[in-house]
Amino acid sequence: MVVSVVLAVLLAQQIHGESPWVNDQNLGDPLRSAEAAQLPPELLDAASRLASRALLSNRAMETLEELCDDVGARLSGSAEANHAVDWCIARMKRDGFENVHAEKALVPHWVRGRCDAAMTSPRPQPMHACALGGSVGTGGKPLVASVVMTESLDSLAKLTREQVAGKIVLLTRRMTRDGGEASGYGPTVTIRGRGASAAAKLGAVGVMIRSVGTANARLPHTGNMNYEEGVPKIPAIALAAEDAEMVERLLARGTDVKVSMESTCEMEGDVESANVVADLIGREKPDEIVLLSGHLDSWDLASGAIDDGAGCVISWEAARLMHELKLRPRRTIRVVLWMSEENGSAGAKAYAVQHEAEAGKHVVAFEADSGAGRPQGFGLTCADQDLPRVQALAPLLRGLGCGAVTKGGGGADVGQLRRLAIPTMGLSQDDHWYFDYHHTTADTPDKVDPHEMSLNVAAMAVMAYAVADLEPRLAAAPPAANDRTR
Amino acid sequence: MVVSVVLAVLLAQQIHGESPWVNDQNLGDPLRSAEAAQLPPELLDAASRLASRALLSNRAMETLEELCDDVGARLSGSAEANHAVDWCIARMKRDGFENVHAEKALVPHWVRGRCDAAMTSPRPQPMHACALGGSVGTGGKPLVASVVMTESLDSLAKLTREQVAGKIVLLTRRMTRDGGEASGYGPTVTIRGRGASAAAKLGAVGVMIRSVGTANARLPHTGNMNYEEGVPKIPAIALAAEDAEMVERLLARGTDVKVSMESTCEMEGDVESANVVADLIGREKPDEIVLLSGHLDSWDLASGAIDDGAGCVISWEAARLMHELKLRPRRTIRVVLWMSEENGSAGAKAYAVQHEAEAGKHVVAFEADSGAGRPQGFGLTCADQDLPRVQALAPLLRGLGCGAVTKGGGGADVGQLRRLAIPTMGLSQDDHWYFDYHHTTADTPDKVDPHEMSLNVAAMAVMAYAVADLEPRLAAAPPAANDRTR
Repeated sequence: MVVSVVLAVLLAQQIHGESPWVNDQNLGDPLRSAEAAQLPPELLDAASRLASRALLSNRAMETLEELCDDVGARLSGSAEANHAVDWCIARMKRDGFENVHAEKALVPHWVRGRCDAAMTSPRPQPMHACALGGSVGTGGKPLVASVVMTESLDSLAKLTREQVAGKIVLLTRRMTRDGGEASGYGPTVTIRGRGASAAAKLGAVGVMIRSVGTANARLPHTGNMNYEEGVPKIPAIALAAEDAEMVERLLARGTDVKVSMESTCEMEGDVESANVVADLIGREKPDEIVLLSGHLDSWDLASGAIDDGAGCVISWEAARLMHELKLRPRRTIRVVLWMSEENGSAGAKAYAVQHEAEAGKHVVAFEADSGAGRPQGFGLTCADQDLPRVQALAPLLRGLGCGAVTKGGGGADVGQLRRLAIPTMGLSQDDHWYFDYHHTTADTPDKVDPHEMSLNVAAMAVMAYAVADLEPRLAAAPPAANDRTR
Repeated sequence: MVVSVVLAVLLAQQIHGESPWVNDQNLGDPLRSAEAAQLPPELLDAASRLASRALLSNRAMETLEELCDDVGARLSGSAEANHAVDWCIARMKRDGFENVHAEKALVPHWVRGRCDAAMTSPRPQPMHACALGGSVGTGGKPLVASVVMTESLDSLAKLTREQVAGKIVLLTRRMTRDGGEASGYGPTVTIRGRGASAAAKLGAVGVMIRSVGTANARLPHTGNMNYEEGVPKIPAIALAAEDAEMVERLLARGTDVKVSMESTCEMEGDVESANVVADLIGREKPDEIVLLSGHLDSWDLASGAIDDGAGCVISWEAARLMHELKLRPRRTIRVVLWMSEENGSAGAKAYAVQHEAEAGKHVVAFEADSGAGRPQGFGLTCADQDLPRVQALAPLLRGLGCGAVTKGGGGADVGQLRRLAIPTMGLSQDDHWYFDYHHTTADTPDKVDPHEMSLNVAAMAVMAYAVADLEPRLAAAPPAANDRTR
């Protein structure tokens, strides 16, 4: 049953051409009979029931649509984000979770305001742009200057102060739709985070970056940036790819390009918000916790369906299915919907402080924060001896096309728990299209394929149940700092 | 040479996954030796030289980028559209054309102004919207009303006045990325054109349509609409697909949805503008004209690269290549860049009046107005006996992958010449992606693949040369009215 549904889903994806990178040859065979004989029969039954129900049901998609439609965007520190906390608490209580509550966290409250950008010379041309999160505004008036164009932080560092001073720097590095590391997200997002201070050190008065993303629909991508201490804070905005390319072409033809940017954004200081926490108490070891999570806050430009409404609902629905099917694992399943991942993971940092005394009771912390593309497996950061033990559970997932359990994984939020020696586990997902919509106005529920959503819930439910039932529990992982932000 | 370049292009397209619908099996063999022996050697040589040079050269792409970057959007009646006329005239003179001049036309001048739309209940949510071309504004204040949703003009007609009066009608019909007729453009664009008057007849106070297009990037698609005489003129706007779907989902859940729309657009009456006309005088029959064309005006939201900067440049560059290669066909090649196609083809109508006396000297009028996707062939509206004569030239194009010459074709502009019995011929192009960008802010030069652009120029140059050289000339085609608008 499960297998045939999955095959139908994968086949449908191939026919529709949505996921040309799906290659059945790489998925591995579904659970072989010899492997099945090695598994506890209760675990195999539980996994089959969870996966099957997940694949037959549209409930995760419905919850995601309703979160996005009823609440909308959920920017850290905003009233809407706090509305989302209340909305989720009410829903999770109705869904049968235990100990459903908010846990307070102080989070940054940055306000976008208005952002206008235009080319002013050689001709007037409005450009599609948005301020970067955390940026200062332009002080109530437009900033007008010539553009100096460079690709990256490395090439910027080769420019002289004379070339840059008094100008607006345009950083043009591109991403590709190649997925995973090959997309170039890592080195490109560094430009978003550090470009302003790097340019300010050379005397630039403002920074424009080509949006960090792969949209080709005149969409600017927002995202967080940071100022280095002791360096002048200059305004930073992202241009739609098309507008950045127009400037690139004109400069390449030898035309002097002047631009205007005006933004009224400002950082308003920390305000009170909250993480959402809900438990499903374990049947044998209720004080040992397997944490499933996504982040509830989103950027303000859209309803945050793929970033990260989907991750929240994948974790939530995986646990809810256990409750619905009366499948309680040995240990407690805790769902946490983090606040303020986008602005520095203040919610997860607060959780780490509030729960430090019980850190040793946290067996592992899962996070789903790469959208809702087809699940591929899990990445796991754990004690060396535990990786093969979790990999031994992976055959349960090969039939779902996501049996890869690889070394190293987590997420921006659960990464904050690593200093407490808590192992972390990240859901790996096909992200070839993710950066078309990431941090844009187009991050809406229609970007989620209902079948892929169900596959993700199935993967999370099976793996979380298996790990929460595993004896002996996973050991503590050597502690480490983590500051990854997506 | 030509063949190997084409194969490389097609192979590259398949590897990049840009055109999954390309199927080499359907292209037909390149020119067979037996067919080559039937063709005038001079024609075969001319076609080979034109196609080869077109495929090796990036000049069409460069001209298109420079038009878009130097001039930008070119809305009928605007100063920018008239700037485009001057820009093209200067360039075409430099390119060696003869008789380069503007031919005046009175065109509508509709001004977009500002358009704000929002859901106001069950919660406030700004929506991405734009006014439809030709619409009236909302009279200086927001129009707020409950939404009544229906799919099409047919389903709207089944509603009662009681259900519609005082409300804003949302028309939700969707297009698909299936290309050609299967995309549903025809029946959907009818809703854009006639929806407002159909709703007003039932007492609606405003109309919102789901954008006519296939964008999934929160982009509204603009486009022309018309009011029926004697029916109240109510404002009409297009919503981004995502915003329309949010309202659909909420209504499907039984929620009453109220929306607000405010637009300041207005029709300012006719103003003077012009078509651009440039000739390449024929070597034997200079007074007989083969007309190549695209439309120079665009919507105001973007620089109109695919609609229809590409068509203008395909026609222009096809003729310019003949000049560069000193290949003068028997008859005159005339390039016409039409003004105001988007608002009712006033430029083409003016040409038909101004050139009525010499209609009989127009052998055929080509138009390219389906973007810059891979050329597939030509559609031809002509006297019955001439179709097989032009089809006999098609083997010259099979090696370019565009050997289909089918019955019936032209375009919105050259269609205005049909009442003068002038045959018309339209370039057929792969339009699977065209409606992702059509009439949106994203219609920019990056949407054009340089290799596909070159293929289009090659196709147009070869076919135009062959027809301009054909003896005897094409006969007049039975006259007909034509009001197709894209």
